[in-house]
Amino acid sequence: MPIALPHHDGSGLFVTNTAAVSVSLGDTVRLRVRVPQGWGPASKVWVRSIQDGEPRYDAAIRLGSAEGWDWWEAAMLVANPVAKYRFLLEVTETPDDGTGAAAAGCSTVGRRYWHLNAQGLFGRDVSDAADFRLTTFAPAPEWLHKGTMYQVFPDRFARSTQADNHPTPDWAVASGWDEPVRGTGAETPTQFYGGDLLGITGKLDHLHALGVDVLYLTPFFPARSNHRYDASTFDCVDPLLGGDQALVDLVEAAHSRGIRVMGDLTANHSGDAHEWFVKALADPGSEEAGYYCFSDDHLSYESWWGVPSLPKFNWSSEGLRRRFVTDEDSVVARWLKPPFALDGWRIDVGNMTGRLGSVDLNHEVARLIAERVREVNPHAALLAEFTSDAGPDVTGEHWQGAMTYSNLTRPLWSWLAKDVPNVNFFGSPQSGPHRISAEDFLATHHDLASGFSWGVRQNNMNALNTHDTARAASVMIDGGQEVGAVLTFCLPGVPVMFAGDEFGFEGYNGEDSRTPMPWDQGVRAGNHRVVKDLRSVYSRLSRLRRELPALTEGGVRWLHAEGDAMVFIRETPESSVLVFAARDAAQVLLDPSVLSDAQLGALLAAPLHQSGTVTSAPAGPSGVDGVCLHAESISAGIWAIPGTAVPFL
Amino acid sequence: MPIALPHHDGSGLFVTNTAAVSVSLGDTVRLRVRVPQGWGPASKVWVRSIQDGEPRYDAAIRLGSAEGWDWWEAAMLVANPVAKYRFLLEVTETPDDGTGAAAAGCSTVGRRYWHLNAQGLFGRDVSDAADFRLTTFAPAPEWLHKGTMYQVFPDRFARSTQADNHPTPDWAVASGWDEPVRGTGAETPTQFYGGDLLGITGKLDHLHALGVDVLYLTPFFPARSNHRYDASTFDCVDPLLGGDQALVDLVEAAHSRGIRVMGDLTANHSGDAHEWFVKALADPGSEEAGYYCFSDDHLSYESWWGVPSLPKFNWSSEGLRRRFVTDEDSVVARWLKPPFALDGWRIDVGNMTGRLGSVDLNHEVARLIAERVREVNPHAALLAEFTSDAGPDVTGEHWQGAMTYSNLTRPLWSWLAKDVPNVNFFGSPQSGPHRISAEDFLATHHDLASGFSWGVRQNNMNALNTHDTARAASVMIDGGQEVGAVLTFCLPGVPVMFAGDEFGFEGYNGEDSRTPMPWDQGVRAGNHRVVKDLRSVYSRLSRLRRELPALTEGGVRWLHAEGDAMVFIRETPESSVLVFAARDAAQVLLDPSVLSDAQLGALLAAPLHQSGTVTSAPAGPSGVDGVCLHAESISAGIWAIPGTAVPFL
Repeated sequence: MPIALPHHDGSGLFVTNTAAVSVSLGDTVRLRVRVPQGWGPASKVWVRSIQDGEPRYDAAIRLGSAEGWDWWEAAMLVANPVAKYRFLLEVTETPDDGTGAAAAGCSTVGRRYWHLNAQGLFGRDVSDAADFRLTTFAPAPEWLHKGTMYQVFPDRFARSTQADNHPTPDWAVASGWDEPVRGTGAETPTQFYGGDLLGITGKLDHLHALGVDVLYLTPFFPARSNHRYDASTFDCVDPLLGGDQALVDLVEAAHSRGIRVMGDLTANHSGDAHEWFVKALADPGSEEAGYYCFSDDHLSYESWWGVPSLPKFNWSSEGLRRRFVTDEDSVVARWLKPPFALDGWRIDVGNMTGRLGSVDLNHEVARLIAERVREVNPHAALLAEFTSDAGPDVTGEHWQGAMTYSNLTRPLWSWLAKDVPNVNFFGSPQSGPHRISAEDFLATHHDLASGFSWGVRQNNMNALNTHDTARAASVMIDGGQEVGAVLTFCLPGVPVMFAGDEFGFEGYNGEDSRTPMPWDQGVRAGNHRVVKDLRSVYSRLSRLRRELPALTEGGVRWLHAEGDAMVFIRETPESSVLVFAARDAAQVLLDPSVLSDAQLGALLAAPLHQSGTVTSAPAGPSGVDGVCLHAESISAGIWAIPGTAVPFL
Repeated sequence: MPIALPHHDGSGLFVTNTAAVSVSLGDTVRLRVRVPQGWGPASKVWVRSIQDGEPRYDAAIRLGSAEGWDWWEAAMLVANPVAKYRFLLEVTETPDDGTGAAAAGCSTVGRRYWHLNAQGLFGRDVSDAADFRLTTFAPAPEWLHKGTMYQVFPDRFARSTQADNHPTPDWAVASGWDEPVRGTGAETPTQFYGGDLLGITGKLDHLHALGVDVLYLTPFFPARSNHRYDASTFDCVDPLLGGDQALVDLVEAAHSRGIRVMGDLTANHSGDAHEWFVKALADPGSEEAGYYCFSDDHLSYESWWGVPSLPKFNWSSEGLRRRFVTDEDSVVARWLKPPFALDGWRIDVGNMTGRLGSVDLNHEVARLIAERVREVNPHAALLAEFTSDAGPDVTGEHWQGAMTYSNLTRPLWSWLAKDVPNVNFFGSPQSGPHRISAEDFLATHHDLASGFSWGVRQNNMNALNTHDTARAASVMIDGGQEVGAVLTFCLPGVPVMFAGDEFGFEGYNGEDSRTPMPWDQGVRAGNHRVVKDLRSVYSRLSRLRRELPALTEGGVRWLHAEGDAMVFIRETPESSVLVFAARDAAQVLLDPSVLSDAQLGALLAAPLHQSGTVTSAPAGPSGVDGVCLHAESISAGIWAIPGTAVPFL
């Protein structure tokens, strides 16, 4: 049975001054924590912050009590750009009489001390690693965390008739739209379907119907592979995709439908056919030779993961910095300006950018790019790829959020895993995701999300899968994708669909997942894919994110995570959303200690969205003395419920 | 009952190439992990490292098996100055037949994956925060981690007759040697006992008898307080302490007894009577004005924790950098050179140095100081104070180790806590240490030690208490100091006695703990202190550290931590030391799975050292089928036992 526990997160219920405006150095913010009377009650509460490297404690006062919870509040000075803090709670075994008498000359007998940080509650000292974080960095544009994102891999999305005008390039092997994707082998990067930007423009109504408002395109620069992460120039859009004008037209058409468009830029490397690299290779004395990491004898060079077609940039080069970032017409700047007017960048291989051996310019490069992006368009988004633990690198100072799998995608795959041989599990040598319990899902999620500020968590990409991974449908038990989708849409972060998710595409690794869209065939089983129409699932989830502010602005409080089932609630002062997910038949009793009576009552209505069969019923024989949530088999449910009803907030 | 679990640490049993020489960038090291057959067996093992920001997996091979353990080994490229790694272990439910057939075309059914990092074993993904770390930084001098340290607060240690020649300074209130210390109040910093360096020189035989080989002196610069952390110059030794010649004589006398001497330097601030600050305050246009953090109107300045007598340094100042660090005769350099020839520095307030608001020059200043120290004397030690979680700042690149309480002192106080009112618990507002279990002790220790490389862990100061804390005897249950001392001497790190520990001094906070030594009275109850002769305890522990290499070079493997008792073993290929500590009557059964038969057999002998009553006996009715360790009440025991006897290592 769920137990009510002390809770804080960075949302508006718990941090004042930050709802609409950003926090500045020297500000004093008020931080709140809610403590269940049944758990404590807490006799004293402090905020412990780190100021200029030294811990400092500020006592909280009890604001009041409501529905079995005490609400405490303390003031904290934001002394540094990243203000780390946690709560220290004192619990007496005999309830404090409120006069403070018990605390005077007190001993430690009958007292326990608890630390509450972003990983949870600890009855012992903890490191500062999982402290909550409040930062003073320039905020990301609001549209980002409110958005619903859709990822398109241009070669596989849609092919306009204009594409027929282009001969197959020399590096490519032409493929019919209905031919199976070759997920491994020599032809994997060269199999060419010929999707183009005009094709995408023609399908914007499909995106609009799905409720998508951010389109993220993998690279559109000319290259010598279908994935185009090996750019041969950053100066134009690949003619095979329709050239510059096709991008102008696509962005314009998207904007007219309220859809923003983000590009994809490799800051770690270019292709070996890149005009800079060609010059660099030919002429060791050229400026461009300094853009890359050549050996002293110029006979070898560093490249991404040792792949010679992807030569690694040398970010010590002032010339590279100018052309890539700081010049008036730099790569970073140019595409964000009219006529292209992209709404932001996703930076490829953000984790490796600027890092080589003893040199680590990663944060310096990130800062450079972020400053330039803000200069050109303060409302542009800037995300970066981090394949591993992203917390230490994605503070919000430069990257606004991470494309990362660690905190959500990986543990979600593991919780919903089916028995599947040889599916690539994010580059790990293990033979596939191994099944974990909901407790372990939550522990992993907390472990890997706690390194982010609350602000960054809102902007992280919540993907079930991407162009770099196997498809959820191939990894998860039947019905798992639908339940997983609910979680990516309802947990903090930006939900991301990879084109084809709405048709239940399968794929055993990233390359294999890049299936052409089944436009002409309608929705039916393809020649090598199970195709399942999930369009209404995704469009309903997108609509809920627009209609229920708690899903984009609310805190997240976990009420249950055990074995096959999990329950959490997103809360703002005005409204809440409760989410129940089960991977098998399950029953969860929510007793009155975790929710207000009004919240429990609202749960007795039918869910706003469900996949599978979920029902709710009063827990007791009569009246609403708690609510019991049932799943008959794998399923998820979303309930919109009234606010927290804390009168003194 | 203890369960054998997979184990790795950074010691010689588990990391090749690092025993005597340091690791360089580009080296390949071989990393080992031991996996109990009863736990797994593991069917596959990988090392997961982070290279230039990207995870990478290297498969391990099974070297062989011995005494119920499989030993696996993998090669890892040291690609970056801090090489982070952990192990991924695959366990099949049906034991692998060794042909690898089970792994081919394998599914995830019947397989579990485990991550082993410096915090332990996780059946789920974990963040990189607690990864093991191997670093390429210049190694610390060997004498440091082999040493036994003794801290002296000069005003309170010993007063030579020469001291009578000095009139009491204007800021001071003279105190007779037998008068009680005033631990709080206006006279706390001015109460002046007049201990001096010649006094210390006269007591070196006392240190030598205790087995001390590193003497750490709190500041000896002239100041306007008895603690002297408010230096008024860095150019001479306080005449009240005997002046420069007294230091020369002390160091020389110490060296002749094989005792090294470390000084204490405030890099965060000076005193407001410092010659630099006096000039700075008087003349806003002076170079010295730039050494401090004045407001624009020069009417106020930043200071340590808002205390105006401790003005904070501005490390952006090139002038400060020169005079404090880089000049030929800088503060940092001068005292390490003849005729003073100090053996190293402990840097005060290392955690705050160079940090103020949006400016964070902490690592830059640390690097500057470390480079200069190495230049002057490559065998000098450099430690720094970190009151909180020190892991992220003490990588070994500059500070070789930390004076920190987080990973050992605090949890040790909590495990051994008695009911004591109003003892200062490291600045926390809690009313004193609260009692935790051995599980929580170990979890805290792992949590806060896992941020250090193995090398740094060897050099961290393991103090039961210092001049800045209450005394262990006032905090711990009766007999707790003796058990605590065993742990500070036997866990990785440099054991530190604060002068007076050997007489069981009490004190409820740092200032109150600075009791003058009872030289003239012999060892008896003082007028306000319980005095207990623990000299033989400490001298025996120091001797064991010299005689048993496993205590200074061995890995550390925890065998048990539950409630009132804990057991760990320090191991090298040649020899081991087992330590058993209990805070109350306890009984721990060590079964054959955790130790080799030879190790278990050796435990049946009497311990080399014990405090309280510990005994060991065969666990079974006949023969050595495990060993049972008994404590009648609070006690600790140390057994020297044969090596790990792994034939193929």
